[in-house]
Amino acid sequence: MAKNKNLPDSPGRYAYDGLDRVIHEKARLGILTSLAGHPQGLVFNDLKDLCSLTDGNLSRHLQILCEASLVEVWKSYGNNRPQTLVRLTPAGRQRFLDYVHVLESVVTDALAMTPASNDKPRLLPGLTPQ
Amino acid sequence: MAKNKNLPDSPGRYAYDGLDRVIHEKARLGILTSLAGHPQGLVFNDLKDLCSLTDGNLSRHLQILCEASLVEVWKSYGNNRPQTLVRLTPAGRQRFLDYVHVLESVVTDALAMTPASNDKPRLLPGLTPQ
Repeated sequence: MAKNKNLPDSPGRYAYDGLDRVIHEKARLGILTSLAGHPQGLVFNDLKDLCSLTDGNLSRHLQILCEASLVEVWKSYGNNRPQTLVRLTPAGRQRFLDYVHVLESVVTDALAMTPASNDKPRLLPGLTPQ
Repeated sequence: MAKNKNLPDSPGRYAYDGLDRVIHEKARLGILTSLAGHPQGLVFNDLKDLCSLTDGNLSRHLQILCEASLVEVWKSYGNNRPQTLVRLTPAGRQRFLDYVHVLESVVTDALAMTPASNDKPRLLPGLTPQ
């Protein structure tokens, strides 16, 4: 039977298959969001500062994003020093947008269903804390 | 100097420190979102189906969420079989809401800054692909 994930409480309703793990990782999400706002690309050091990452961390995440064809890395030796420019690929931009739309649905789900509740927990009959 | 993360392109603008890694993991995000909509709690099998998880995966993630005091797990032996009920703790609900508000800002950032762009990449002078 086909699942209809739009129905409340249908199987898989909260599986969020579209949350691509390559994009969803916190540091990579920051990297991709900053690149999305800079179509011309960002040099390595600016990207590092914007995302509060170390050299090593940013390099590691860029390698993963390159392998997934989400970003492209360009090298230059202008101004007597090596420079690295990072940009979203066109496919990466599209995959990132698809991901953001799923994220939007998570936020909508969470905010729609969450009444502020500071009620004391009510014990159900026969239930004991683990 | 204090960072103002609200300014465009200030250092750490895309660090998203509030994306608590315990909550941000994809499966746990699904678990917490479904629990947020069910203040009375969900039994293990219903939660498993809603999130499309296996028994082992759900158990593992619940252990992490319990250790972080985000959820509470209750056991019962009514109806001649063991039952497990999972609920958000009041503190867990608050932390989840805080997280969702950061997620909302990611979505806002991403959608505000992303013009659909299918332009061919323009080569900058002196840049060569890695």
